[in-house]
Amino acid sequence: MHAVTIVDGSLRWQEHPDPVPGAGEVLVRVHAAGLNGADRLQVMGLYPAPSGSPADIPGLELAGEVAALGPGAERFAVGDRVMAVVGGGGQAELCVVHERHLLPVPDGVDWAVAGGFPEAFTTAHDALFTQAGLSVGERLCVHGAAGGVGIAGVQLGVATGASVVATVRNEALRDQVAAFGAAVVAPEGFGDHGPFDVVLELIGAPNIGDDIAALTTGGRIAVIGTGAGVKAELNLLALMGKRGRIHGSTLRARSLEDKATAARALERHVLPLLAAGTVTAPVHATYPMAEATAAYEHFAAGGKLGKIVLVP
Amino acid sequence: MHAVTIVDGSLRWQEHPDPVPGAGEVLVRVHAAGLNGADRLQVMGLYPAPSGSPADIPGLELAGEVAALGPGAERFAVGDRVMAVVGGGGQAELCVVHERHLLPVPDGVDWAVAGGFPEAFTTAHDALFTQAGLSVGERLCVHGAAGGVGIAGVQLGVATGASVVATVRNEALRDQVAAFGAAVVAPEGFGDHGPFDVVLELIGAPNIGDDIAALTTGGRIAVIGTGAGVKAELNLLALMGKRGRIHGSTLRARSLEDKATAARALERHVLPLLAAGTVTAPVHATYPMAEATAAYEHFAAGGKLGKIVLVP
Repeated sequence: MHAVTIVDGSLRWQEHPDPVPGAGEVLVRVHAAGLNGADRLQVMGLYPAPSGSPADIPGLELAGEVAALGPGAERFAVGDRVMAVVGGGGQAELCVVHERHLLPVPDGVDWAVAGGFPEAFTTAHDALFTQAGLSVGERLCVHGAAGGVGIAGVQLGVATGASVVATVRNEALRDQVAAFGAAVVAPEGFGDHGPFDVVLELIGAPNIGDDIAALTTGGRIAVIGTGAGVKAELNLLALMGKRGRIHGSTLRARSLEDKATAARALERHVLPLLAAGTVTAPVHATYPMAEATAAYEHFAAGGKLGKIVLVP
Repeated sequence: MHAVTIVDGSLRWQEHPDPVPGAGEVLVRVHAAGLNGADRLQVMGLYPAPSGSPADIPGLELAGEVAALGPGAERFAVGDRVMAVVGGGGQAELCVVHERHLLPVPDGVDWAVAGGFPEAFTTAHDALFTQAGLSVGERLCVHGAAGGVGIAGVQLGVATGASVVATVRNEALRDQVAAFGAAVVAPEGFGDHGPFDVVLELIGAPNIGDDIAALTTGGRIAVIGTGAGVKAELNLLALMGKRGRIHGSTLRARSLEDKATAARALERHVLPLLAAGTVTAPVHATYPMAEATAAYEHFAAGGKLGKIVLVP
């Protein structure tokens, strides 16, 4: 097979041996693979792939057809449409995935959408519901709502009957985010639109103090992005006064069983919404995998709404 | 009645009109009232009483006999032994308490123990179980274990089958804390005894970074004290890597219904342990209420294990 390959900090479209599915694993012929921030960090040498994933092939999510089954794999049949979050190696013609990490792709969902869906929606669903316990009628603030996880969070918040306020720095993208059902505001002074039961924090350290100030009693802050900074000042008395909670999480470093648990939650609770068209992963652009360098440059330039997705 | 009374930053034993129980309230003849840090802050003018509590009579907890019932009060009868967390006014001969905030005092429990029990155990139980979800077999670290809430946390941790590590700065108190079933260590290098599922943080800001480093995946930090500092540096990536959670809470500022909910949890889950002698509020000294100034000075001096309790 060919795969997007990291060679001395650059990307090449190179030949690799075909991967072979082991016990419980499935060989997937990749039709689409979304691009994520962690891919860029991995190319820059800042985010090594977890053990068990190829060190030199990026790609945290993929969608494709089942091409072969390893011993004991029984959840899917050859030809089934599937998608998954993977530890790495998704940006390739073929990828081996454990069957417990695979989700079915609902009928009528494009390959590009499916290829950009799993990572953002698993992350947003896990943060909003498994961690922060977002519920009907609550007030949610999504910081950095124009990103892949942000727009997933907005849609999941609207779908659960929460009242969603979204901050978007790029003015040109605000109308597009608002079309998903959020009240879109500038990052400055977002607290005037609170208080919030849940804050989905995709920007990072500079926001934490204002996030706590904007919480209602018993509010929760779920931190899953730190692009604007890692070291926050935390006023403990302010957090205590709100009886608030700050969660942090990442998806990639999880154990196989924790990833499978997150995949099952997505399958049960979010796939019906995707199948019904209630939520989607908006696709900004697709690139052939052989042109991955251009795709990564487009991704790095920002200013877009929706995923950049690689196709073979 | 007479009550400990704040007059220009000092304490007097003064005459007040007898309080009258309203609908659903109970008049309690106080037999014991524990001293807490918030009382000192209130005397210093740094922690005003919440609305609905007397502004000039300190006292966050009490135990005594039911002296009279307000209209509709039905949970207790005149003469019953009761105890409660109150918003203030506990350090007096008489105090009015809503019946939903009162707990029965189990037979055989001394007045002084009952007077020093509710605040520390409600706070520790709420932080460890309602918030942090401490469970059997988990590993708990209690920072500041020689204080009233700390020693309550140690006992509740041991009672639930957790493995408890306690940090105690004052070497002279370590053996006394160890007698409650914790492995007692110096605050420096406590992380070597982890990783911890739950950290009960009674010291504050300087510990937060080491607390996160000492967490296991999915660990929780419950912050309920900040004596050593309020402004912590929070490394968001470190918290995300642990998929950790930081809770903050206070008891005093809660709504009436939230305090009643906490009282019911204590009644159901902790009173049986108190009745059985599995947990207790150790009493360091008792003082007559008329000598409150000496009691507060003793409290401020520190270096003790157990509560200072005022008696009429």
